[in-house]
Amino acid sequence: MIYLDNAATTPLLDDVLNEMLPYLKEYYGNPSSIHKLGRQASNAIELARKRISKLINSQGDIVFTSGATEANNLALKGFAYAMRSKGNHIITSSIEHEAILEPCKELEGAGFNVNYLPVDRDGMVDLDALERSINEKTILVSIMFANNEVGTMQPVKEIVDIVHKRRVIFHTDAVQAVGKIPVDVKELGVDMMTLSAHKMYGPKGVGALYINNELKIEPILHGGGQEKEMRSGTQNVAGIVGMGKAAEVAVQKIDYYSNNVKNLRDGLISDLLKNITHSKLNGHPTKRLPNNAHFTFLGVNGEDLIIKLDENGIAASTGSACSVQKQKASHVLKAMGFNHEEITGSLRLTLGIQNTAGEIEQTVNTLGKVVSALREVSPYKFKYALNQ
Amino acid sequence: MIYLDNAATTPLLDDVLNEMLPYLKEYYGNPSSIHKLGRQASNAIELARKRISKLINSQGDIVFTSGATEANNLALKGFAYAMRSKGNHIITSSIEHEAILEPCKELEGAGFNVNYLPVDRDGMVDLDALERSINEKTILVSIMFANNEVGTMQPVKEIVDIVHKRRVIFHTDAVQAVGKIPVDVKELGVDMMTLSAHKMYGPKGVGALYINNELKIEPILHGGGQEKEMRSGTQNVAGIVGMGKAAEVAVQKIDYYSNNVKNLRDGLISDLLKNITHSKLNGHPTKRLPNNAHFTFLGVNGEDLIIKLDENGIAASTGSACSVQKQKASHVLKAMGFNHEEITGSLRLTLGIQNTAGEIEQTVNTLGKVVSALREVSPYKFKYALNQ
Repeated sequence: MIYLDNAATTPLLDDVLNEMLPYLKEYYGNPSSIHKLGRQASNAIELARKRISKLINSQGDIVFTSGATEANNLALKGFAYAMRSKGNHIITSSIEHEAILEPCKELEGAGFNVNYLPVDRDGMVDLDALERSINEKTILVSIMFANNEVGTMQPVKEIVDIVHKRRVIFHTDAVQAVGKIPVDVKELGVDMMTLSAHKMYGPKGVGALYINNELKIEPILHGGGQEKEMRSGTQNVAGIVGMGKAAEVAVQKIDYYSNNVKNLRDGLISDLLKNITHSKLNGHPTKRLPNNAHFTFLGVNGEDLIIKLDENGIAASTGSACSVQKQKASHVLKAMGFNHEEITGSLRLTLGIQNTAGEIEQTVNTLGKVVSALREVSPYKFKYALNQ
Repeated sequence: MIYLDNAATTPLLDDVLNEMLPYLKEYYGNPSSIHKLGRQASNAIELARKRISKLINSQGDIVFTSGATEANNLALKGFAYAMRSKGNHIITSSIEHEAILEPCKELEGAGFNVNYLPVDRDGMVDLDALERSINEKTILVSIMFANNEVGTMQPVKEIVDIVHKRRVIFHTDAVQAVGKIPVDVKELGVDMMTLSAHKMYGPKGVGALYINNELKIEPILHGGGQEKEMRSGTQNVAGIVGMGKAAEVAVQKIDYYSNNVKNLRDGLISDLLKNITHSKLNGHPTKRLPNNAHFTFLGVNGEDLIIKLDENGIAASTGSACSVQKQKASHVLKAMGFNHEEITGSLRLTLGIQNTAGEIEQTVNTLGKVVSALREVSPYKFKYALNQ
């Protein structure tokens, strides 16, 4: 199988699994227990915290969660409820993941006002709109580092400068960026940042929120007071160990992404655009994740494309895996101003460190045939099929 | 090492790990993806749901969470916020786990009234007080199945009858009971029930909330809409698979608990009470979990005892692992009417299916020596040491 859905999830690296296994076997203690088995588990958690801190250049101010969705919920709701008395205005973008948009809707129901910033056709957030939106009641701006569908990367440093000039706190959902491009929270000035293990060759079921030590948040899971009272519940020790190892490995893989993966991806893009008529690349042409390729093939239905590719042993996606269940048209492409036909014909191919040049070549060939075949039976047949 | 802290967490069974491994290796798809790898993952989740349903005799109405703490938070807050317009009164007991008590405190801050029912010296909830507490604003009663510290089991069926007669919904935190004694939600009439994988030889980082299909709850984690919109976030596939396998295995282990484990535990209790003067068993003498033994050794400090046992290769606990971090005196023993000295001298030994008669014998011998030695240096020396 050729796996080109690495934005949905990544395979677990052998090195990561090997580091997890002892914590699934002999070191099974509850990290809150004071006996030796407990201390082994809590020491392992602290090592993971250090490794993740190193990857993002933080000071160990990492709260482990069950994943990025929980980390985003904690950042938004936890901070908003803690700051309620200071203000009730939040700014985010219209192309965020559902794990940001849905907590924002929830907060709107609880009396907060949320602005959803527009983006341009490449998916870049409108920074003038950001500046204009900040008012004296604004407590938080949350804008994703890189988009999960089209791969567009936001100018985070510039955004932080605008936000901090107005003394507002900045959070970023960086799950698609961390491990693929350098992300340095100190240099960028980010106050809170969401990470996910399974987007960077770690296990599913574990994520983290980087949170500047000076910030106060209210927990959303209450109980035994783990994670410095910010997130109760027995920690997923093996998962956290895996995330720590994945972070350590990621430090070494960033060059591989910016060279090898990016080159493969660039070849994929140029070959596909050359081979398939009425096709175009979506997202910013250069300010995009090194592993993301997102296309529209006019006259095809993206879901049919996924199914045909799947039959040919290629795993791909129309967009966010999480929105598949809701079967909604991509809110990201809508916000970018795409029309119905452009959205319908969209396909996301996201590479990983495991993909080879041969796989990419095979994908280009298969996709050409599959798009052709689908256009033959498409209601738009006469519009595009003859050119193929 | 002799592990007698199975109420804090249990080792992962080899069978469970073996079933998890393929989902940590080759079947790494995101369960929301529509391609083959995604479908393999979502099929595995559905099998786990069936296996857990079978263990508790439910109809597949299981929501997977990151653990029991999240499941308890979801049950209490999710149900309370959904029912806000119908009433604002909740009843629980004074000996619940922090993962119930802390969400209740949170709900009190949000305008709910919570009654904390008293218990007797054995840790049995006062059922008259329960009946008297229910009023026309009561929406939920949450009482644990079996106590995590002293092992006392509540008469759940009787409680459900009282609660349902008043048309109120009943939730139980059953993490210590499920897998050790038969728990049948249909027979008991329980409306919501919390389960934990790592308390029954499954992995840490995964739990579940059984929730009667007719109930409405508000999610606490918002995002991609997984778990029928009740719990967003990419599922911890391998963890869920492990929980499913642990549930399947548990069905077969319940007899082993009620015979073998209980016999070992009974021997441990009688030998310790015989060998060590000024010692007593806490919790109900008969209505208690088959694997729980909880003692007070007067004139000793429980934490010193844990450390000494740890030095001798025995893992034990003073009470809840989760409250160790907070270093508070046990609220459970306080509610049972214990005085400071009785609380200070407490020790919990919780057995598992892996413990042997030899281990129990060694524990009895070691504990006798350790209690003696500690009493020699205790400020209460003259009160107890001479008898030892």
